[in-house]
Amino acid sequence: MCVVRPLLIGAALVALAASAFGQGPGQRPARVISPEVGDDGKVTFRLRGPEATEVVLDAELAGGEHPMTKGDDGTWTVTIGPLDPEIYEYTYRIDGVNVTDPHNAAVKIWMGGNASVFEVMGDGPAFYDRQSVPHGDVHIHRYDSKSIGQPRRMHVYTPPGYENDTEQRYPVLYLLHGSGDDDSTWIQGGRADIILDNLIAEGKAEPMIVVMTNGHPTPWGTRRGGNTGLFDKDIVGDVIPFIDSRYRTKSDQQYRAIVGLSMGGGQSLSVGMNNLELFDYVGSFSGAIFGMESNEAMQAFLKNPEHSNSSLRLLWIGCGEDDFLLSRNESLNASLNEAGIEHVYRITPGGHAWPVWRGYLREIAPLLFAE
Amino acid sequence: MCVVRPLLIGAALVALAASAFGQGPGQRPARVISPEVGDDGKVTFRLRGPEATEVVLDAELAGGEHPMTKGDDGTWTVTIGPLDPEIYEYTYRIDGVNVTDPHNAAVKIWMGGNASVFEVMGDGPAFYDRQSVPHGDVHIHRYDSKSIGQPRRMHVYTPPGYENDTEQRYPVLYLLHGSGDDDSTWIQGGRADIILDNLIAEGKAEPMIVVMTNGHPTPWGTRRGGNTGLFDKDIVGDVIPFIDSRYRTKSDQQYRAIVGLSMGGGQSLSVGMNNLELFDYVGSFSGAIFGMESNEAMQAFLKNPEHSNSSLRLLWIGCGEDDFLLSRNESLNASLNEAGIEHVYRITPGGHAWPVWRGYLREIAPLLFAE
Repeated sequence: MCVVRPLLIGAALVALAASAFGQGPGQRPARVISPEVGDDGKVTFRLRGPEATEVVLDAELAGGEHPMTKGDDGTWTVTIGPLDPEIYEYTYRIDGVNVTDPHNAAVKIWMGGNASVFEVMGDGPAFYDRQSVPHGDVHIHRYDSKSIGQPRRMHVYTPPGYENDTEQRYPVLYLLHGSGDDDSTWIQGGRADIILDNLIAEGKAEPMIVVMTNGHPTPWGTRRGGNTGLFDKDIVGDVIPFIDSRYRTKSDQQYRAIVGLSMGGGQSLSVGMNNLELFDYVGSFSGAIFGMESNEAMQAFLKNPEHSNSSLRLLWIGCGEDDFLLSRNESLNASLNEAGIEHVYRITPGGHAWPVWRGYLREIAPLLFAE
Repeated sequence: MCVVRPLLIGAALVALAASAFGQGPGQRPARVISPEVGDDGKVTFRLRGPEATEVVLDAELAGGEHPMTKGDDGTWTVTIGPLDPEIYEYTYRIDGVNVTDPHNAAVKIWMGGNASVFEVMGDGPAFYDRQSVPHGDVHIHRYDSKSIGQPRRMHVYTPPGYENDTEQRYPVLYLLHGSGDDDSTWIQGGRADIILDNLIAEGKAEPMIVVMTNGHPTPWGTRRGGNTGLFDKDIVGDVIPFIDSRYRTKSDQQYRAIVGLSMGGGQSLSVGMNNLELFDYVGSFSGAIFGMESNEAMQAFLKNPEHSNSSLRLLWIGCGEDDFLLSRNESLNASLNEAGIEHVYRITPGGHAWPVWRGYLREIAPLLFAE
C-alpha cells in the first residue's frame, strides 16, 4: 500500500484543508489536496488556478514534465505513475514560472530553487523511513568561529543511548552538504539521522556521532573563491576542537571520517587530504572535483602513494552514472589508479540527486570505524 | 543601514546567483536577486516570468497587494517601502495563483500555505537577531508517545552554559505553536532560541529550558476533534516525564510554565487549567479560545477563583487589536474579571502574525520564574 508521507513537518499531514485558525472568518480557501498518492502508487497533482493559461508538472525523477489539464472548476490536475517507492521532488511551471506547489507545505530548501516533496511508500518502511527503533537526537549549535571570524551554525547527531552510558566514547563522521544546501540539509532532506538510527538498530553501523557543519563560509552564489580554504580552517580550528570537547568522542584519527556530497565531496577530499593526520576515512558522493591540478594537498596525496595508502583506512568515491559531474570523478579515479592509491570507486544508477546520496550514506556508514 | 538577512538557512545568503553545482553545464538560469533591500529600507521584488500575464506582490504586513510591472527582459518588478525593521512574509500571485518567490529560498513553512520571508534590519540588531552573546542549543528528540501511541517529535532549547555547570538545575517553559505549525516553528519562524539568548544575556530573563512539542496529535486539517485532549495526555504522560528525566530541571510546579500561540494558546489555557498542580505560569498569545463553555477544567477554574488565584503565579493573555480572534479573548477577559481571577490582559497593535508573537515572548519571558 502506498501512502503520502509528510516531509519536514513532523507528524502533521500536509496538503490538507486550510485551518480555521490563521484565516479570517469566511476566508477559508476551498480544500485542495496535492499531491495524493493512491494505493496503486499513482500520484495525482492538483493546483487551483482558474486564471492560469498553462500549468506543467516538472518532476525530474518521476518522468520529467507532465502537462496538467484545467477542469471546469478551475483546478488543474494530472495523474502519473505508478511510481516506485522513493522521495520525489517537483515544481509546477505556471505560465512559464517554476514554483513550489502552494497546496503542499513540504519543501526541500535549496538556494538554487526550492522544490515540493512527497514520498511514495512501499509495502514496508524504507531505510530512510522512521521506524520503531531507538532514536538518536539532533543538536543545533550556534558558534562564533575564531578561525575565520564568522557567526556559524552546525547540526550534530548523537546515536541512540548516547546520554545513558556516560563512560562510552564514540567515533565521529563529519558529513558535508552540497552547494546551495546548509548544515540542516542532511537532516531535512537527507534524513541522515533516520538512516543512522536504522543502520545502528540493525547492527550494520557502529554507533557514531555525525557532525554536519555549514560548508558556505563564503556566501553561496558569490564567486570570490577561497571557500574550501576557509572551510578547512573552520573545521580544523573550531569545529573539531568543539566537538571533541563538547561530546564524548574517540578523538584518534582512526575514529574520524569526513564525507560529503557534491561541493561537500570536493571539500571532503581537499580537507581530508590536507589533514591526513586527522582523518582515517574520506568519502566523496558525486564530488564536485574542480581545480585538482592546483590543489597542493591533492597533488601531494597523488605523488606519495605509500604514505597516502598508509594514512587512510578508506577512500570512497561514488557517482551516479547520469551525473553531470561523472567525468570529473572518472578523471579522479584514473589519477588514483595511475598513482596506485587504494580506493573504492562506485558508479551507480542515478544522477545528481538525493536518492543517490541517501543510498551512499547507507553504503558507506557500515564501512566506517569497524574494529 | 538596511540589509537583507537570510532566514532559515544559516549563514548562507539567499537569493543569489544559481550555482554551477546541481545545474548541468549551460543550464544556469540568469541571476535574479529577490528581494533586495536597499540602504533606505526600500525593497525591490523581482520575478522572471516572460509568459505570465499578471503578477502581484502580496505582503500583508508591508502594505498588502502591490501590482508588479513586466520589463522588456520578461522580469516583473516592484519596489515598496521604506519599510520598518521587521521580518516580513510575502507571496507572489502569478496569474491568480499565490506561490512563494522562486528566487528566494527562505520560506516560512505553514501547512495552510508557505510564505517567502525577508528581514529589514534597523541600525542595530533587533531582539530577534543573532548577536555576539553566549548561545544556547536546540535539541531535536524523536520519541514514541506511550500515552497516545504515536511517533512524535519535539524541539528543546537549553540556555547558554547548560552543559558547563552540571549541578545547576533550570526551570522549564513549555512553548506551544499554532495550528498548521509544528514543533520546529517557534525556532524556524519564531526565533525563540535567539530571543532567549538575547534576554538571558541582558539579564532580563532567567536561564530556562524551553520545550517545543508538536501540538497536532490529530493531523492538521482533519476535523475529528479531541486534539487538545490527546495533546494533554501526551504532554502530561510522556513529555514532562521525559524532560524531567533527560534534562536537569527544577521539577516543582513553581518552575514550570505553559505558553502558546493561537491554537497553542487555547491548549495552554486548557492544559494549564486542567493540571493546576503542574504549572504555576500559564500564557496565551492570540489564543484560539473555542468551546470554553464545555471545557470542564476552564469552567472549574472560573468557578473557584480563590483556588485558581492561589494555584497560579501568572495568567497572561495577550492579543493583537486587529486579530480576528480578539472577540474570543475579550470574552475570556470578561469572564475572568467577572470571576475575580487575577490575570494580565494585554491588547497590542498588530494582527494574527509573528511580529506580535515574537514580541509577546520577549514580554513574558522576563515574568517567568523570577525568585
